[in-house]
Amino acid sequence: MDSVTDRKRRPKQTGQRGPVEHQRREQIIRAAEQHIHQVGYHRTSVVDLARAIGFSTAYIYKFFDSKRAIGEAICAMTLRGIDEALWAIAEGPGSAEARLGRIYKALAEQGRALFFNERQLHEITLVAVEENWSSIDEHVEALRQIIRRIVLDGREAGEFERKTPIDEVSGAILQTMSPFSHPILLQAKLDHLEESAGAVARLVLRSLAP
Amino acid sequence: MDSVTDRKRRPKQTGQRGPVEHQRREQIIRAAEQHIHQVGYHRTSVVDLARAIGFSTAYIYKFFDSKRAIGEAICAMTLRGIDEALWAIAEGPGSAEARLGRIYKALAEQGRALFFNERQLHEITLVAVEENWSSIDEHVEALRQIIRRIVLDGREAGEFERKTPIDEVSGAILQTMSPFSHPILLQAKLDHLEESAGAVARLVLRSLAP
Repeated sequence: MDSVTDRKRRPKQTGQRGPVEHQRREQIIRAAEQHIHQVGYHRTSVVDLARAIGFSTAYIYKFFDSKRAIGEAICAMTLRGIDEALWAIAEGPGSAEARLGRIYKALAEQGRALFFNERQLHEITLVAVEENWSSIDEHVEALRQIIRRIVLDGREAGEFERKTPIDEVSGAILQTMSPFSHPILLQAKLDHLEESAGAVARLVLRSLAP
Repeated sequence: MDSVTDRKRRPKQTGQRGPVEHQRREQIIRAAEQHIHQVGYHRTSVVDLARAIGFSTAYIYKFFDSKRAIGEAICAMTLRGIDEALWAIAEGPGSAEARLGRIYKALAEQGRALFFNERQLHEITLVAVEENWSSIDEHVEALRQIIRRIVLDGREAGEFERKTPIDEVSGAILQTMSPFSHPILLQAKLDHLEESAGAVARLVLRSLAP
């Protein structure tokens, strides 16, 4: 897990305020997540949130300067959880081919879970995309690095072709994941999500053949 | 051009009313498009529109039962224009490989044009996607048929592999076009749109190699 932590740059979130009393901050984020899970992001205010989780509004403002800052922290936590699961696949056992296939599958599954079981988190990711929160860029960048890592492994093992520039191929694969990673597209495709992700994965894997 | 017309099924638009005085209806759609081009879709009402294009509100309601019905007609007209341009590529000269590459390029270019020069039309397509207008489904279906046609041509000419089921491969290629055809994704990717479409096209073409 150390390498996972090292790999991440410091998140550039806006509106994160106050001393880094890390534990207390995490505690607020988790309580806020629980509350938003019940009530929804749009219908939550900092005042409601404070009341519901048993802190004073002033205390919450010590850590976060707005509802948006809390939303960003929750979103970043959610996406980092997804990234870690994807890194675990990328660095896990199996051929590069098998691992890349699993990434598509995991994206589709996590997208579905986000949409169905964690609807309020999905709502936050929609706002995040709309407002260009930094956690979205970080997630996309993580995905690009994950793809790059697997493709490089596959090239080294002789599983994948080596002629196409690595940045071009990683970038193109990243694009092909949009239908399974973008919250708005996910939402439109729930019916055949896994099937569709599988078909794209196989298309890409045929493309990578040496 | 006959084959293009034959190919299209009758659009199933909602709220289209009155006698099919085709020319007059087209005239209203084009005038409405001009007006919306100036004012924007969200800021237009049927009353404003009638005043601006010199018809009575009652007369417009003979053809369209709501602002949305007018928006749907404009959106359908715009997307059909794009589909015809894409069909012309699909049925035009060149290898299947070249034609498929041109489809990606054309999508990126038309997406950019829609966004920059025809911003108000782009605004309508955003509403169309959000509200699931039938013209969107028809456009996606046209795109699927266009891809299928080129892939079948390529298979017949020995340019493309024939092992993968045609529906699977056409569906997967359709997915890879989302970043260049979905109005929300287009909007987020304007910086490297053509470059990115080119990279995905080459990835897909490598995949199609026999």
